[in-house]
Amino acid sequence: SINADRLLSRIHALGEVGRDGDGRLTRLAGSDADKAGRDQLVRWLREADLEIAVDRIGNIFGVWREAGNAEKAPVLIGSHIDTVIDAGIYDGCYGVLSGLEAIQTLREAGAALGRPIAIAAFTNEEGVRYAPDMMGSLVYAGGLSLDEALATVGTDGSILGEELRRIGYAGADGPGFSKPHAYVELHVEQGPVLEREGVPIGAVENLQGISWQRITIEGVANHAGTTPMSMRRDAGYAAARVIGFLHDRATASNTPTVATVGCIAFEPNAINVIPARATFTVDLRDPDAERLKAEEAALAAYLQDLATAENMTISTERLARFEPVTFDARIVGIIEEAARGRGLASKRMTSGAGHDAQMIARIAPAAMIFVPSVGGISHNPREYTADTDLVAGANVLLDVIQRLAAE
Amino acid sequence: SINADRLLSRIHALGEVGRDGDGRLTRLAGSDADKAGRDQLVRWLREADLEIAVDRIGNIFGVWREAGNAEKAPVLIGSHIDTVIDAGIYDGCYGVLSGLEAIQTLREAGAALGRPIAIAAFTNEEGVRYAPDMMGSLVYAGGLSLDEALATVGTDGSILGEELRRIGYAGADGPGFSKPHAYVELHVEQGPVLEREGVPIGAVENLQGISWQRITIEGVANHAGTTPMSMRRDAGYAAARVIGFLHDRATASNTPTVATVGCIAFEPNAINVIPARATFTVDLRDPDAERLKAEEAALAAYLQDLATAENMTISTERLARFEPVTFDARIVGIIEEAARGRGLASKRMTSGAGHDAQMIARIAPAAMIFVPSVGGISHNPREYTADTDLVAGANVLLDVIQRLAAE
Ligand SMILES: NC(=O)NCCC(=O)O
Ligand SMILES: NC(=O)NCCC(=O)O
Repeated sequence: SINADRLLSRIHALGEVGRDGDGRLTRLAGSDADKAGRDQLVRWLREADLEIAVDRIGNIFGVWREAGNAEKAPVLIGSHIDTVIDAGIYDGCYGVLSGLEAIQTLREAGAALGRPIAIAAFTNEEGVRYAPDMMGSLVYAGGLSLDEALATVGTDGSILGEELRRIGYAGADGPGFSKPHAYVELHVEQGPVLEREGVPIGAVENLQGISWQRITIEGVANHAGTTPMSMRRDAGYAAARVIGFLHDRATASNTPTVATVGCIAFEPNAINVIPARATFTVDLRDPDAERLKAEEAALAAYLQDLATAENMTISTERLARFEPVTFDARIVGIIEEAARGRGLASKRMTSGAGHDAQMIARIAPAAMIFVPSVGGISHNPREYTADTDLVAGANVLLDVIQRLAAE
Repeated sequence: SINADRLLSRIHALGEVGRDGDGRLTRLAGSDADKAGRDQLVRWLREADLEIAVDRIGNIFGVWREAGNAEKAPVLIGSHIDTVIDAGIYDGCYGVLSGLEAIQTLREAGAALGRPIAIAAFTNEEGVRYAPDMMGSLVYAGGLSLDEALATVGTDGSILGEELRRIGYAGADGPGFSKPHAYVELHVEQGPVLEREGVPIGAVENLQGISWQRITIEGVANHAGTTPMSMRRDAGYAAARVIGFLHDRATASNTPTVATVGCIAFEPNAINVIPARATFTVDLRDPDAERLKAEEAALAAYLQDLATAENMTISTERLARFEPVTFDARIVGIIEEAARGRGLASKRMTSGAGHDAQMIARIAPAAMIFVPSVGGISHNPREYTADTDLVAGANVLLDVIQRLAAE
């Protein structure tokens, strides 16, 4: 079994790295806070005596390889240490640190494995500063060119490639330099299912599709006091209509479709000026590929009608588009067995969040292990998973990689 | 008659002062751009050999006083030179520069008037950076204490008093240091009425009430992918509901009520995070005092129901509240006569915008002259009034102040 104290103390230590003046944890990809988190992780990888590699998109790898297995494809454990704005401490970090913990446990026990084991911390999984999300693992898996990824312009106008150089994590290895034998990711569920059902382990068999768009509505700035309602072309009002449409449609649908408008800006953004422009993001998700497409089409049709009705120009930019992913059934089964071996109930389930596993699934058999999130809260500083659940998940991970490394 | 070329060339010259890197005219109160505009105005006041005074709220005065009339209360002409974001060149500046032009014309003609004439450029009329709007004239008229006004915190966290000191326009005179005999303000209409009716001069007899509020909705941040629609407390969606309510209610009302949401912000403002907080401004106006109150009450009731229905905390902060104002009927009559004297049609009308005249009306008989705005467009770089209309308005102003100064 893993060293619970070491794992938990590392999770809490990393959770303090990169807090801002207000105490908020915000380690956006490529930021100074991200650098501080990466530096801490690299210190731990070094302490654990792992070979360290950083690839050109900034993914960090810690590899345990012995003379007897060095030529074999490794079992890869991965997740990320970048965060959203005002984040919790578990999302991503739990998986990376559990992977490290599992490797350390096996080494300390003198285990001799048939394959190398590697732990990866992928760049920019959250996608908050640079879209799309899961960028580091997507590039690793060959789904996005390195050059395109490095040229990505952030919400703050920064360029990812420049930021990676600046913080010292533009590495030398080509992404995809090693093709894993299998990939496993341990993560907090971030949703309400496991807690509600009282099940400690999720065996994640698929992951829903994700559609991200940025929508810009162009109206006409005019005076808030002198312009009759009938003469307005109010881009802010049109944006509000879209937000209402998306939310009400998803709520009424009786399907798992979710729709979120997380970012918004008006221009000129002045109290007595009718907004000339509204820009906002749309995050649409659905486990069913056809339904996700239909939801996108319904939004597009709504925008077209709105543009006509309100006499505005509406433009749409795709920020991310990922189809639903089915994980490797064999590894899902191994996860279930491992949970059983530990006396833990498990449940086959869908991931509502995007994860690096969905990208690595393009190049290797992959699956995920979930543990419960209290209240289903994530992307919020109140994100919490009980220590016993964290430790149980890490032990299941330990058993699963041991199984996979023996293949 | 006034010197049309001098007036128009000054309007265009001042319209170039304070443009940003993108060529947008943005002279927010207390900014570097405001300082540049003020410096230009003061140079012109000096050229016209006027006595210059700056009071402690930064209002700038140019006074023409002769030995024979120095003890009499002056006729005051006023407006402002601060602007909104991405503004046109006429709003405010037209009135200040026409006042200066009228005084210069009278002096050059060797007129001997019974009263001094003064021109005022009031601080922070727009209210975009610091609320409330019409702040300099409000303080001048005793409607807001100097200390409270100077302590106002701006949208950018700056403090008005510090900014006035920084740009060198925290003057020595107490606001209200001279009580005018009468006040006249010439302004572009900023609305569609005069152009639609083909009338060159508006004799403004009243001005609608203004209610500004900042509303904050507190929901719960959560993951955009994992949180079912039924479990969300999405502050952004709630804000969209309010924007729709205000706009649809005002549009359907068949009254002159106008409602605008000009500013908005979500927190944390991340693409895959359900907004924890939405903050936005509400600008509500109505020429009828009772109806304005009823509209405010309807909004308050809506917010209360919404807070209950969506399980959110909603708080409201008053930023400005001004009752409708009736201008001095005698001066309105003098404006109509002056228009007639110049062979110009005029129309009694209501002002949709707030103006310094509505504040000075608290301490002196006041009224306003409007000229047409092409397309009814204002608070927009496309704001435009034809030169002939500008010149006609300035000549009416000239005649009106000559009349008032003879009293
Ligand atoms: N696990 C996680 O929060 N990933 C971020 C990408 C997303 O699902 O929005
Ligand atoms: N005239 C003018 O635009 N004033 C600004 C104050 C307001 O009406 O919002």
